[in-house]
Amino acid sequence: MTLRVLGLSGSLRAKSTNRGLLRYAQAHAPNGMKIHIADLLEVPLYNADLAEKPPAVEHLLQEFAEADALLLACTEYNYSIAPALKNALDWASREPDNHLLRGKAAALIGAGGGMGTARAQYHLRQICVYLDLQVMTKPEFFASAFNDNFDTDGSLQDEKLQEKLQQSLQALKDWHQQLHGVK
Amino acid sequence: MTLRVLGLSGSLRAKSTNRGLLRYAQAHAPNGMKIHIADLLEVPLYNADLAEKPPAVEHLLQEFAEADALLLACTEYNYSIAPALKNALDWASREPDNHLLRGKAAALIGAGGGMGTARAQYHLRQICVYLDLQVMTKPEFFASAFNDNFDTDGSLQDEKLQEKLQQSLQALKDWHQQLHGVK
Amino acid sequence: MTLRVLGLSGSLRAKSTNRGLLRYAQAHAPNGMKIHIADLLEVPLYNADLAEKPPAVEHLLQEFAEADALLLACTEYNYSIAPALKNALDWASREPDNHLLRGKAAALIGAGGGMGTARAQYHLRQICVYLDLQVMTKPEFFASAFNDNFDTDGSLQDEKLQEKLQQSLQALKDWHQQLHGVK
Amino acid sequence: MTLRVLGLSGSLRAKSTNRGLLRYAQAHAPNGMKIHIADLLEVPLYNADLAEKPPAVEHLLQEFAEADALLLACTEYNYSIAPALKNALDWASREPDNHLLRGKAAALIGAGGGMGTARAQYHLRQICVYLDLQVMTKPEFFASAFNDNFDTDGSLQDEKLQEKLQQSLQALKDWHQQLHGVK
Repeated sequence: MTLRVLGLSGSLRAKSTNRGLLRYAQAHAPNGMKIHIADLLEVPLYNADLAEKPPAVEHLLQEFAEADALLLACTEYNYSIAPALKNALDWASREPDNHLLRGKAAALIGAGGGMGTARAQYHLRQICVYLDLQVMTKPEFFASAFNDNFDTDGSLQDEKLQEKLQQSLQALKDWHQQLHGVK
Repeated sequence: MTLRVLGLSGSLRAKSTNRGLLRYAQAHAPNGMKIHIADLLEVPLYNADLAEKPPAVEHLLQEFAEADALLLACTEYNYSIAPALKNALDWASREPDNHLLRGKAAALIGAGGGMGTARAQYHLRQICVYLDLQVMTKPEFFASAFNDNFDTDGSLQDEKLQEKLQQSLQALKDWHQQLHGVK
Repeated sequence: MTLRVLGLSGSLRAKSTNRGLLRYAQAHAPNGMKIHIADLLEVPLYNADLAEKPPAVEHLLQEFAEADALLLACTEYNYSIAPALKNALDWASREPDNHLLRGKAAALIGAGGGMGTARAQYHLRQICVYLDLQVMTKPEFFASAFNDNFDTDGSLQDEKLQEKLQQSLQALKDWHQQLHGVK
Repeated sequence: MTLRVLGLSGSLRAKSTNRGLLRYAQAHAPNGMKIHIADLLEVPLYNADLAEKPPAVEHLLQEFAEADALLLACTEYNYSIAPALKNALDWASREPDNHLLRGKAAALIGAGGGMGTARAQYHLRQICVYLDLQVMTKPEFFASAFNDNFDTDGSLQDEKLQEKLQQSLQALKDWHQQLHGVK
């Protein structure tokens, strides 16, 4: 069977390098893995006063429901996680019994400044403790968004990073299998 | 002169206990301090592709510009900062030379579950390193949102917490003065 | 077969509540689990200049080698991990290919002040990412060292905490089994 | 008057690059600053059962007492602070009313792997909240220990890093002055 992975990016910008990472991952997923990329552009900030979930939220929750595992492209703003990604996870966590997230395998990746979103990723790891997401320990993936690693459309160009990203995807597949058996 | 403090809450909910903390602070600010509370309800998620700043963002940035210091009511969702507060700080950080935030005194407060938003506050402290906000070390303020500490409108009722909050405000005033001289 | 768990405490004090947690765990381990408690009293601070490993270090490394999983009683000093526990893990991490730690299941527990060592435990979770220890997400275990939860010898007295600790041990057993199959 | 700074390194190794940073700082302190480097080699792990403070601890506490500000060379082991540095701070924090640390200015520096001890420095910043040390926000100092930045004795060779370190020392002097007035 196919491992269905939901990819989310913290950046909403069309030419974001983090969205570029997800596109590369989608195009180069290992055999037996299919990556769907969520579109967070219309997902509003969580507000408990909203009488009904907006359509973009309902759509997002359906995407979480259909995912076996998560690939989180963890854009870093100001030494922490980008609100758009945190907000998507917050919405998902509100469902009964946390059933959209609980126990699923997750991998963190990111492109950014000097430390490749590391500071944000460690915050995200703490968040995942509460969410009961099982985040893969190794390999970690930190990409510099500079040095021509990406083109002006945010697409991943650097061959070493491409290879590392493919290794991360394979490791996510192995990690899911270790946690949940052959899928 | 009067110390002008901008209060921001991570929760958008009208009856939020964190908004209740800000209301109490506003009503009981020490002499020489005036607290203005930002309304984040219409502030959209940051997106570098937006051609112009939305009016609610322009309004928020003006509020930051007029503030000498910040009072951050750090709602915790899923062991980290609520996106609405992070997003407000992210918008402010994008202004030239970080002039809306750089060097200003800040105090963190919060109401929530068992640890009173502590986990989120330590993330926020790391964020403030990059933002060059000078966060007060003591006293820290962690309130339980339970045990009748707040009424159903989110207003702060517990007398010990009221007293602690007033001490935090006085400490913020002293901290600002230590950093920037008599205001 | 029996799951062999190595218990380590960050506190060296004989009457430490964290050592008390380990003693309770040892006496009430679930069927199929055997807990051995390391003695860190003679383990010196790591120093790369030491020509040979001191005997207490050699002994400790042997204990790690014989363990299938770890139970870390994460004493908190000054909002972070106690050096004695960090130091024990640092020594273990220096062995070739990280073979003493890599991939093993771990559970974090702790007794302390208001937040029950939570701040230290999140630091320890980040450490475990590098160590490639697979830390259980749920349940987390945070015990107050006050309120007669422990007697003056540091032994665990509170029945609810006793029950929670037993649940944590069972969860560690389940987590090991999920990761590594029936043992 | 002269600003007296106590420098501490997390690494005990004679040729440690973090000790090299302290030596360079000591030799190139700005006018009006004098840096003394603590020797942590004989300071044992804190243990509340010790009847008396060992002589090396008494000596260390005296050094803290004589310091106006701290320069912390934050060696990173396994994604967090080196126990020797944490242990020195833990010992100092046990003195009555935290008078050896409370309110003093501090700067964090570090040399290490890819991220230049950043992960450990953010843990140390959280520790300093409790210790009531006022850690400078900018500039941060992260040095790679590779690329011939240091010689085989651990002495700092790279000119850009030398310049950055001097800027950090000047910033620490300014930060102390901002906090405590002309010294």
